[in-house]
Amino acid sequence: MDYQSFFRNQLAELKQEGNYRVFIDLQRKRGNFPAAVRTHKKGQDDVTIWCSNDYLGMGQNPDVVAAMHAAVDRCGAGAGGTRNISGTTHDHVLLEEELADLHDKEAALVFTSGYVSNWAALGTLASKIPGCIVFSDSLNHASMIEGIRHSRADKVIWKHNDLEDLEHKLASADPARPKLIAFESVYSMDGDIAPIAEICDLADKYGAMTYLDEVHAVGLYGPRGGGIAEREGLMDRLTVIEGTLGKAFGVVGGYIAASTELCDFVRSFASGFIFTTALPPAIAAAATASIRHLKRSNTEREAHQAIVAKVRKRLDTLGIPHVPNPSHIIPVIVGNPAKCKFLSDTLLDDFGIYIQPINYPTVPKGTERLRITPSPVHTSGDVDRLIVALHSLWNQCQLARQPMAAE
Amino acid sequence: MDYQSFFRNQLAELKQEGNYRVFIDLQRKRGNFPAAVRTHKKGQDDVTIWCSNDYLGMGQNPDVVAAMHAAVDRCGAGAGGTRNISGTTHDHVLLEEELADLHDKEAALVFTSGYVSNWAALGTLASKIPGCIVFSDSLNHASMIEGIRHSRADKVIWKHNDLEDLEHKLASADPARPKLIAFESVYSMDGDIAPIAEICDLADKYGAMTYLDEVHAVGLYGPRGGGIAEREGLMDRLTVIEGTLGKAFGVVGGYIAASTELCDFVRSFASGFIFTTALPPAIAAAATASIRHLKRSNTEREAHQAIVAKVRKRLDTLGIPHVPNPSHIIPVIVGNPAKCKFLSDTLLDDFGIYIQPINYPTVPKGTERLRITPSPVHTSGDVDRLIVALHSLWNQCQLARQPMAAE
Repeated sequence: MDYQSFFRNQLAELKQEGNYRVFIDLQRKRGNFPAAVRTHKKGQDDVTIWCSNDYLGMGQNPDVVAAMHAAVDRCGAGAGGTRNISGTTHDHVLLEEELADLHDKEAALVFTSGYVSNWAALGTLASKIPGCIVFSDSLNHASMIEGIRHSRADKVIWKHNDLEDLEHKLASADPARPKLIAFESVYSMDGDIAPIAEICDLADKYGAMTYLDEVHAVGLYGPRGGGIAEREGLMDRLTVIEGTLGKAFGVVGGYIAASTELCDFVRSFASGFIFTTALPPAIAAAATASIRHLKRSNTEREAHQAIVAKVRKRLDTLGIPHVPNPSHIIPVIVGNPAKCKFLSDTLLDDFGIYIQPINYPTVPKGTERLRITPSPVHTSGDVDRLIVALHSLWNQCQLARQPMAAE
Repeated sequence: MDYQSFFRNQLAELKQEGNYRVFIDLQRKRGNFPAAVRTHKKGQDDVTIWCSNDYLGMGQNPDVVAAMHAAVDRCGAGAGGTRNISGTTHDHVLLEEELADLHDKEAALVFTSGYVSNWAALGTLASKIPGCIVFSDSLNHASMIEGIRHSRADKVIWKHNDLEDLEHKLASADPARPKLIAFESVYSMDGDIAPIAEICDLADKYGAMTYLDEVHAVGLYGPRGGGIAEREGLMDRLTVIEGTLGKAFGVVGGYIAASTELCDFVRSFASGFIFTTALPPAIAAAATASIRHLKRSNTEREAHQAIVAKVRKRLDTLGIPHVPNPSHIIPVIVGNPAKCKFLSDTLLDDFGIYIQPINYPTVPKGTERLRITPSPVHTSGDVDRLIVALHSLWNQCQLARQPMAAE
C-alpha cells in the first residue's frame, strides 16, 4: 500500500469539503490580551482575539502570572515523573485540595487535560463497574464519547437535554444494573444549559450515578466560580463534577471532584492517569492561584456577563442572527464551511479580528458557525470594531438578517 | 447498587495485594535537584530523588528556566484554546520546527503528553487506514496499547524484541493489507533496547510502516539527542518517531515526527489532538530551549553515561543484583510488592533516599522492583549515600546477593 498517497487523498478530500483546518499562529500579549500578534507568510499583524476560551482573561491575571513565576523559580520546569514515580509535587496536593473545596467534595484528582480527565474517568468507571450502562447526552463532548467508547460498557444515547427521553431510557433498562448518566452543564457550541436538578431527580429515582462536565462553566458561574451546579445549589447531588483548568482558569489541565473513594478508585485504575508525566508544578501553582482568585472575586464574572449582553444587543440591533441561549457563548450560524471560512479570513485580513470558523467535526455539517466569546478584557472600542466589521461583511456578502431590534 | 462500597472493596483488594499506591509529596529545589523536600503527616524532610525521569536534570537548566519565565512574561499562563481555536501560539510553531529538525523529518506534531501522542497517533493511523494490521511488541507502553485498542484495528502481538517471531507473524498476514509495526527503542522498566535496523528491514520486506516510541531515549542518545535511531543512523528508515518533552527534556508534552502528510493527517483526524486545549506557550518555549541546548551540548549525555556506569559498578561490588542492559536504567528486582514497598519506605524514612517501588500494573506481578535512574546532577556524595543505604538494607533484610565483583 502507498501510505503517503492515502494520506494525501484523505487531506485533499477534507480540503474539497472546506473542512481542512488552517491554524492561526498567534502571540498573545500579556497584559493586553485579547490583543495578539499574528504571524503569517507575508509578515505579522496585530489582531484582536474574539474566540478564546480564556473567557475571563485569567491567563494574564497578575496573581496567576506571579504564582507561575514563583513556582518555576522554586521548582524548575517539569515534574520529572508520573504522579506515582516522583511526579507528585506539593503544588499538585494543594491544587487538588483547592478543587475539592471549590466543588464542596471530599476529594479531587488532576489530569493532564480536560480531555484526558473525561476519557480516563468515564473510561475507568464504566469499564470497571460490572454491568454498568452509560446514559450519554447526544451532544456530549468528544472526550466523553471516547471515554465511554473506550470502556466498552453498554451505552444508551438520550436526546440532548430531553428529560422525557432520558427517563424513558432509564425506565427501560434492567433496574438491577449499575447506571451512570453523563452530561454537560454548558454545551460549548450552542451555549445551552442542561436541566441539572431534573437529571439528578431521575438519577435518584433510577439509582444512577451522575457525571457532570462543567468545563465551560467553572470559574464563570456560581458565587465562588464552582459552575452552574454551584449557582443552582446542586453540587452535592452530583456524583462526579468534571472541570478544566484551561478555559476560565486560564492555564491547562483537567480534573474530577467526587468522593474520596471514587477519586481514589480512578487514581488507582485509570491508565490515562497512571502512565503519564504529571503537570509541571508551575502549572499546578498557577491554576491554584486562579481558582483562589475567582473564589473571592465576582468582578470578572459580572463584567463577563455584562459584555456578553452588550455584544448580543449590538448584534440584535444590526439583525445579525445568533443563537439565543442562557450562557456566555454567542454562536453566529453560517451553515456552510466555505462561507464560514471566507468570513473568518476576511475578518482577520481586513479587520484584524480573529474568530475561528467552527466546522465539522466540531459541529454537525450544515451548522458551521462563528463562535464569539466576549471577555471582560474586551474594551468598548473592541466591541465597536467587531460590530462595524460584521455589519460591513453582512452587507458585502448579502447574508440573511433578522428583523433589526429597536436601538 | 451501592457504588461507594464497590469502590471501597476494590481499593481494599489493592491494599491487600500490596499494590495500593501512595504518592510521595515532593518539592524539587531548583538548582539543587535531585534534592527535594518531602511533606508528610509528621512534617517535612530533605530527600534525594533517585527515580526521576528528568534524566539529565534539564528541568532546572538555566536556559530552560529562562525561556519559561520569558514566555510567561510575554504571553501569560495558558494558550486559551485548542490548537484550531486560538490555541496555536508562535511558540508551538517553533517547537514543531525544532522537533522536525531534531529527527530530520519533514514535520512534527505536538500533543499535550507522550501518553496522548501515542494514544492519538496510533489510534488514528490504525483506525483510519482501511484494513490496517498493527504488529505490537508485547512489552509496549500502556499508551500504545490503549491507542491500538482504541483503533479497533486487527492487532498481532509479537514476542518482545524477537525478530523471528515478528517475521513469522508478518509473513502469515495477508500481503495486500496495510501494516504498522509499533515498538519502543529503550524499554523503560528493563532498560533493554530494540533491534531497530532489523525491524526496519522486516518492515521494508513486508511493506509495513514503522512507529518507534523513543520517549526514554530522546535527549539522551545520538549526537544531537535524537535518540537511539539517531545514534544508529536510522531515523530516515522510520515512518514515525514518537517522543516526549517530559523526561530528558525536563518539561511536559509529547510529539510525533514524520512526513508532512502523515503529521497533517493525524492533525486533521485525531480526536485527542483536535479537542483539547493546547499546551501553554511557556511550556512550548521551555521545551524548545531544552531541545536546542541538548542538540549542541554532549556534556550532559556524557556525564549521564558516566554516573550510570559508576552506580552499576558500585552495586556489583556489593553484589546487589540488577538487570544488565545497554541503557541508563538500573532495575533492582525485588520480586514481591510488599517487600519492595518496605525497602522503599525504609530508604525514604531512614536514609532520605527516594526510590519509588514499581509494582503491578506497571510491571508484571513477581517482578516488582526498585528502578534507579542516576543523573548527571547526582554527586559522588549522593552515590556514596545510596550505596551505603542499599548495603545496610540488604544486610538488614537478608536479601539475596550475587557474587561480589572485585573492587
